[in-house]
Amino acid sequence: MTMALHAAIAESLRERIRGGKLLAGQTVPSEAELCAEWNASRAPVRQALATLRAEGAISSSRGRRSTVRADAVGQPFDTLMSYSSWARSLGRTPGQRTLELGLRTADSDAAAALRLDEGSMVVHGLRLRTLDDVPTMLERALYVESVGRLLFEFDSDAGSQWEFLQSRGVVFAAASHVIDAVAADAVDAAWLGVPEGSPLLRQRRTTRNGEGVVIEYHDDRYLPAEVAFTIQNAPDMRTPLVRSTRP
Amino acid sequence: MTMALHAAIAESLRERIRGGKLLAGQTVPSEAELCAEWNASRAPVRQALATLRAEGAISSSRGRRSTVRADAVGQPFDTLMSYSSWARSLGRTPGQRTLELGLRTADSDAAAALRLDEGSMVVHGLRLRTLDDVPTMLERALYVESVGRLLFEFDSDAGSQWEFLQSRGVVFAAASHVIDAVAADAVDAAWLGVPEGSPLLRQRRTTRNGEGVVIEYHDDRYLPAEVAFTIQNAPDMRTPLVRSTRP
Repeated sequence: MTMALHAAIAESLRERIRGGKLLAGQTVPSEAELCAEWNASRAPVRQALATLRAEGAISSSRGRRSTVRADAVGQPFDTLMSYSSWARSLGRTPGQRTLELGLRTADSDAAAALRLDEGSMVVHGLRLRTLDDVPTMLERALYVESVGRLLFEFDSDAGSQWEFLQSRGVVFAAASHVIDAVAADAVDAAWLGVPEGSPLLRQRRTTRNGEGVVIEYHDDRYLPAEVAFTIQNAPDMRTPLVRSTRP
Repeated sequence: MTMALHAAIAESLRERIRGGKLLAGQTVPSEAELCAEWNASRAPVRQALATLRAEGAISSSRGRRSTVRADAVGQPFDTLMSYSSWARSLGRTPGQRTLELGLRTADSDAAAALRLDEGSMVVHGLRLRTLDDVPTMLERALYVESVGRLLFEFDSDAGSQWEFLQSRGVVFAAASHVIDAVAADAVDAAWLGVPEGSPLLRQRRTTRNGEGVVIEYHDDRYLPAEVAFTIQNAPDMRTPLVRSTRP
């Protein structure tokens, strides 16, 4: 497949931004530099820069050199919420295997996670998530009963569970994520194919609906050889990433 | 110490935002709700809300209920860059013990981290970082020679190394952070007081100066029992946190 020169130049710049070679606030190479680098005329270089400006990845120049915008490499809500959306955004194929899905009464941990009373009915799920058929993450999820019961109708071969729940009227309005490290337990070890005790990158997520009610809690454990989290910052940015101490 | 009522109400709201009980985009309790909750008159409630508005934590209402701003719980550049600034922002006392500081020629890993040629001179450091005298993090740092040499004049009892370098004219213009998990090696185990192989939360950071040149690389390993990273997101936000696959 041949890519037009302007598209190749634009994609190369996007790649430098994503890969951290061009950071937020840094100046983008000038037209002259890009012409020299690509042995190109001004037209495709200008078109590539116009494309990135239109995407919001770089600032408009107004006489000055364009700079990389702070949110150029950000992820929209759905790619942080949905493994499937995230995988597709990378051009990879998401996969999943449902290992458990059940209704049970909440123990004290589940009750605390969903802000319910102990003994409330909840739905719990255990899923192995893959990228191009390679296991990357083990997902333990808890849902309030009204949301979780919908999942008994979900065909996991049909795509994204998150998109399915939205199609059934579930509103995911805000999420809080806590990222840390944890030793693989016996369940993690068996499904992720690593020795027990291996370090895993853990993302715990609490999701609320439009009324601020907690509807879902996740404990997702990633193989650190496969997945990492990246953040870029600069002096004129406040980042929503907060480093906290444990209570 | 007695706190004025308006200050107590404001601090309680800040605490709910920091603790994830009030997420970005959610509406803040109304004046009437806060009056009932605190058994207070309108004046201190209005003053508390005005304080949070002035701090940028909540939106100005203009007839509608105020909502929590996306960047309300964000960290400014310096608290993500400086362990000391971060600790002080929490009201905790940062501490450090310099274990190693030296000049050496860059091996291939150090050269790649600092985007230098192999064999270039670099400065490497190993520091144990504490909060209220409790070890929380082991920091491995690499500096380009011109920056690192300044550290031989730094008195680690005098405060923040980051602030010291800035006072000597070093510009930290942009940083890229990669967060993952790693097994404690023998050095980590010895200084952090955990068994070898224990899961640690790792933050690797590449910092550039105003010209886009890499000047510093960190590999910071946190005890996950002590420190976690938190992020809040909502559908109208792009977050600078990116989940990536390994190359």
